[in-house]
Amino acid sequence: MQSYDVLVVGAGAAGVGIGCALQELTLTPNQWLIIDRTAVGSSFRHWPCEMRLITPSFPGNDFGVIDLNAVTPHTSPALSLAAEHPSGPDYARYLCSLAEHFELPIRTDVSVTAVEPADDGFIVRTTSEPLHARLVIWAAGEFQYPRTTGFCGAEQCLLASTVSSWNHIMGTDPIIIGGYESGMDAAIHLARRGMAVRVIDAGTPWDTIDTDPSRTLSPYTQERLRALPNGALTLIGETRVERVVTVAEGYYVFTNHHPVPLFSAMAPILATGFAGSLSSPAIAPLFARRDDGYVVLTTEDESTITPGLFVVGPNVRHDDLIFCFIYKFRQRFAVVARAIGQRLGLPTDGLDWYRERGMFLDDLSCCDTTCAC
Amino acid sequence: MQSYDVLVVGAGAAGVGIGCALQELTLTPNQWLIIDRTAVGSSFRHWPCEMRLITPSFPGNDFGVIDLNAVTPHTSPALSLAAEHPSGPDYARYLCSLAEHFELPIRTDVSVTAVEPADDGFIVRTTSEPLHARLVIWAAGEFQYPRTTGFCGAEQCLLASTVSSWNHIMGTDPIIIGGYESGMDAAIHLARRGMAVRVIDAGTPWDTIDTDPSRTLSPYTQERLRALPNGALTLIGETRVERVVTVAEGYYVFTNHHPVPLFSAMAPILATGFAGSLSSPAIAPLFARRDDGYVVLTTEDESTITPGLFVVGPNVRHDDLIFCFIYKFRQRFAVVARAIGQRLGLPTDGLDWYRERGMFLDDLSCCDTTCAC
Repeated sequence: MQSYDVLVVGAGAAGVGIGCALQELTLTPNQWLIIDRTAVGSSFRHWPCEMRLITPSFPGNDFGVIDLNAVTPHTSPALSLAAEHPSGPDYARYLCSLAEHFELPIRTDVSVTAVEPADDGFIVRTTSEPLHARLVIWAAGEFQYPRTTGFCGAEQCLLASTVSSWNHIMGTDPIIIGGYESGMDAAIHLARRGMAVRVIDAGTPWDTIDTDPSRTLSPYTQERLRALPNGALTLIGETRVERVVTVAEGYYVFTNHHPVPLFSAMAPILATGFAGSLSSPAIAPLFARRDDGYVVLTTEDESTITPGLFVVGPNVRHDDLIFCFIYKFRQRFAVVARAIGQRLGLPTDGLDWYRERGMFLDDLSCCDTTCAC
Repeated sequence: MQSYDVLVVGAGAAGVGIGCALQELTLTPNQWLIIDRTAVGSSFRHWPCEMRLITPSFPGNDFGVIDLNAVTPHTSPALSLAAEHPSGPDYARYLCSLAEHFELPIRTDVSVTAVEPADDGFIVRTTSEPLHARLVIWAAGEFQYPRTTGFCGAEQCLLASTVSSWNHIMGTDPIIIGGYESGMDAAIHLARRGMAVRVIDAGTPWDTIDTDPSRTLSPYTQERLRALPNGALTLIGETRVERVVTVAEGYYVFTNHHPVPLFSAMAPILATGFAGSLSSPAIAPLFARRDDGYVVLTTEDESTITPGLFVVGPNVRHDDLIFCFIYKFRQRFAVVARAIGQRLGLPTDGLDWYRERGMFLDDLSCCDTTCAC
């Protein structure tokens, strides 16, 4: 059985990003490995083709403002892709070029079926041979793990994340369930095609103003919404979907607010977020959980009940801090890499410039200082 | 004659930004003053109404990525304007809200006619009473000082910066002289209206790839160019305009490359950059000049020949470093404010958090570290 000091699971934005940070530890190629179920950046390749990164890329790195979508302090997707809002395939290309440039040791087409604590580390069961690792960094993402439960008939709906193009969706009267970024992205593309779009959400995310972009629609989306013709969208807030019933002519959506169900000839589109890869049985038991379902992590993003198991990526939360954008979770790469280096007795001073470039968030009391101006 | 310790000339992005930094020095209101020829942010109010900030705003401040268009470390135009690419009037509103929030002492409708070194400082002559100041910070901008010379007949052309809306421009065959951001912005808006647009430039800025956004078109503009129909724009690079001749039917544009002049029925549009306010006779003599015309500054952005006279804003250059974007020149506010504080014997520790938040560029050997990924 092959044995590694560090095994990274996932070669998306989080896996490639932590990989670049780990290279600063001067690990030798046979000391560590990144594995991915399919290929580098593959989740991004499955985005609807109209979908773009909602955080804008800009090559401000050299003047202290790192490209929001960069996963290392000195690269910029804006520069390499000549794009402000890269598409999914664009962004996958950026990740591939990083993997090549930083010579990351990546093995693709390896899917993890279980992670088992063992002597001096973990046995990681995969669809091919099992691997041994002293330390495991879980960097699998969210996009391939949509949240599909919550009401009866959800399985009749169309999952937003499985749509290859909004141009393939036929009909005139879509109902979209979920009014955060992915629901609004669907709504915008369908409304631009002239459909009468309704968006239902249990809250009113379109009205929320918060200094934290994880709790409010992005400026990019707000601008696109304003550019739609008046009345193109009907926003139905503070409304919970209770069930979806299929009949011959279409779909009835029952809510807690409408005395009669809403009707659509088209399958309702489900955009209710992501359960995330940490909900997978292969890994879920190795973490303690908060009341809201998120995993409990140490200040170095290690499992509190399974030492040696770290998490990077959009699943990381600390108290009220949500790390679900690239520009947020990348702030923790060097923190985790430093912990790995210390654990393995490797020099960590190569990580200093992550801190110098403002990409090293170890003070979790940060934040909420932006004023309303 | 009223006398101040510090007088800031200009209440645009640079003047309001340095004003917010100066407030950290705990100056009393009667110790300093900001004056502006018209009003806070007035240059921005004169932008063509279709024009937007080309740097994208995003409220990433709390996670170490300050909004590119913010002039203080803890504000965000993305947040207060709900916009990614604010318009000129939008941005002026942001500056006004800062002026109010930070209680900046601003006097408007005061135009500077001369700055004269005098005992213990300067006499600043204005269109109303003269003012005395120990230290002067020149924060007047660029937009109201276009570069209009360079070839015969330039005065026959339409200055891009004087256009109130590209929708007011009538014709079918515009020639735009200058292919950087403002020329391309004009080109994009006119091409979207179906005009056959030609852009002439002495170089090929549309092909330049550089890690420095001051030397290449922004991702925002690159994306907008790609979205135009094929053939909507004719880009004429490596071509210098030698003269423009007006005839009854229109305008002939003679270049160094075309054996016969280019013809347009419309006045050519001049977008050849800005001479900047430091070219104004009121202030020009107080600086030494580099060969390229930019002023020579100390490492604290003070005139090398007129002690006590500082510069902030897009006119600042150090060697090859160009500070012509907000996210660049704001990096020098705290450097200048610190120098002012030291000169006046005031505590400067209020500026520490500019450094903590990565908004304090005093190491001018920075930069050029972004790799091509």
